[in-house]
Amino acid sequence: MGRDGRPTPQTGPTAVVAALVASVRAALDAAGLATADIAAAGLSAPGPLDHRTGIILTTQNIAGFVDANFPIAARLAADLGGPQVFVDRDTAMAAIGEGTIGAAKGARDFVYLTVSTGVGGAIVSGGRMIRGVTNTAGELGHFPVGMDRDVRCRCGSFGNLAEAYGAAEASIVYAKAATGDARAVALIARAEAALANLAVGIVNALNPERIVVGGSVAEHEPAHVLEPMRRAIAERAFKVPAAAAKVVPSALGADVSIIGAALAARDRASGGGDWFL
Amino acid sequence: MGRDGRPTPQTGPTAVVAALVASVRAALDAAGLATADIAAAGLSAPGPLDHRTGIILTTQNIAGFVDANFPIAARLAADLGGPQVFVDRDTAMAAIGEGTIGAAKGARDFVYLTVSTGVGGAIVSGGRMIRGVTNTAGELGHFPVGMDRDVRCRCGSFGNLAEAYGAAEASIVYAKAATGDARAVALIARAEAALANLAVGIVNALNPERIVVGGSVAEHEPAHVLEPMRRAIAERAFKVPAAAAKVVPSALGADVSIIGAALAARDRASGGGDWFL
Repeated sequence: MGRDGRPTPQTGPTAVVAALVASVRAALDAAGLATADIAAAGLSAPGPLDHRTGIILTTQNIAGFVDANFPIAARLAADLGGPQVFVDRDTAMAAIGEGTIGAAKGARDFVYLTVSTGVGGAIVSGGRMIRGVTNTAGELGHFPVGMDRDVRCRCGSFGNLAEAYGAAEASIVYAKAATGDARAVALIARAEAALANLAVGIVNALNPERIVVGGSVAEHEPAHVLEPMRRAIAERAFKVPAAAAKVVPSALGADVSIIGAALAARDRASGGGDWFL
Repeated sequence: MGRDGRPTPQTGPTAVVAALVASVRAALDAAGLATADIAAAGLSAPGPLDHRTGIILTTQNIAGFVDANFPIAARLAADLGGPQVFVDRDTAMAAIGEGTIGAAKGARDFVYLTVSTGVGGAIVSGGRMIRGVTNTAGELGHFPVGMDRDVRCRCGSFGNLAEAYGAAEASIVYAKAATGDARAVALIARAEAALANLAVGIVNALNPERIVVGGSVAEHEPAHVLEPMRRAIAERAFKVPAAAAKVVPSALGADVSIIGAALAARDRASGGGDWFL
């Protein structure tokens, strides 16, 4: 298997497509394959986007993608000169991966939650992914779980943990807390309370069989992520849905969205994927 | 059309079924009909319950229904001696009503929210009702939207508004606020903030086309219910789902669950109702 990684260009969509094409070619070279050898490619991207048409509507964190309505799937397919390209939101790809071969395999009702620099998610209910009317459903990280206004964004997400502390990323805050830094300890307690509320809300509102939790913070700090979620569900969620819900770690780890993208491309290229489209 | 209402007995399931049978007979008499004239009956009940089997698992507010696993649909059908009986949660019945002939007609992605003594709901996504693994999905009133512990339940629901004030129902608190009572004003502001957070969360997580808001408080105090929801969505929800979401009042009013129950019974008796089962 070939693998290639490179930074996202910040000079607009054309540069991003060129970097993606170069990355695909490098990965194929490493695997001793040609473009003609691949039938389909999957692209995991931040939203909001339209997974059916392969158009990225807007993406805040990449220059040139704000209100761009950029047909990235078609452009990438054309520039690759071969395979069909299927795009979906990173969290949707992760849910496809976990649902197909990972921690949610066999579950018809599950939530994938990523806890890293931000909190995001995807919802599968009754065996179908919840998309919403404009394909943006699943943004569970932005369910407001706090009512005071002492933090900039009231989502209580882990993005805010790092921001609130003034650190580049959440791992620094956890390291500070381990040395007894009172401000770090307090902010982590706050983030745990927000996650706990989110878990109770997910269980009560969606009644999932599993909540699969991925993302770098969840992976490295399960005691501060999965455990508070489990405790809150047991203590505060309604009895019937609480008894049915298991909080489990991602089975596919850091590559969950990449693996999901490959599985999504395979399924969609063969006319399948009905459950997540 | 015949109509009959009576208080819910608090002496156990057998008494409740007897009261329901008596009520059905009185309504039929008033309409000049016999039991043999009706093909199916719908029963709207508090959950958690299993709408497929017609079993009420538990109901906190009716004596004798805690952990009862009571087969109310079968018992009611037997005692009525005629029609099939179909049971569903009150908020699911309301969503069936609004989705079939009401304010959500034609929408494939909508949320029904009831704001009365408590806050409850039902979710329809991609044209199908979200049920969850044990049929309790939709309890949006219990998505925790506050992180402080100064109120008993942290849902921020309107049930708490009355409780927090020490009034029998929310309408009293609104009346007090209108006379300038500072505590009532503060509690209402808090309830509005909770509803606003809930609205933002619903829009971000579920991306509905419509949020249909029913319930007595919503009906009588739209400026304190629908308006804060609309403002919060416009100000704080993500742009794409916010632009797609309309907050609208229930079209079926106080009878929404009764009308929904009749429509559900009609559809299920004829082998339909796939979208909400």
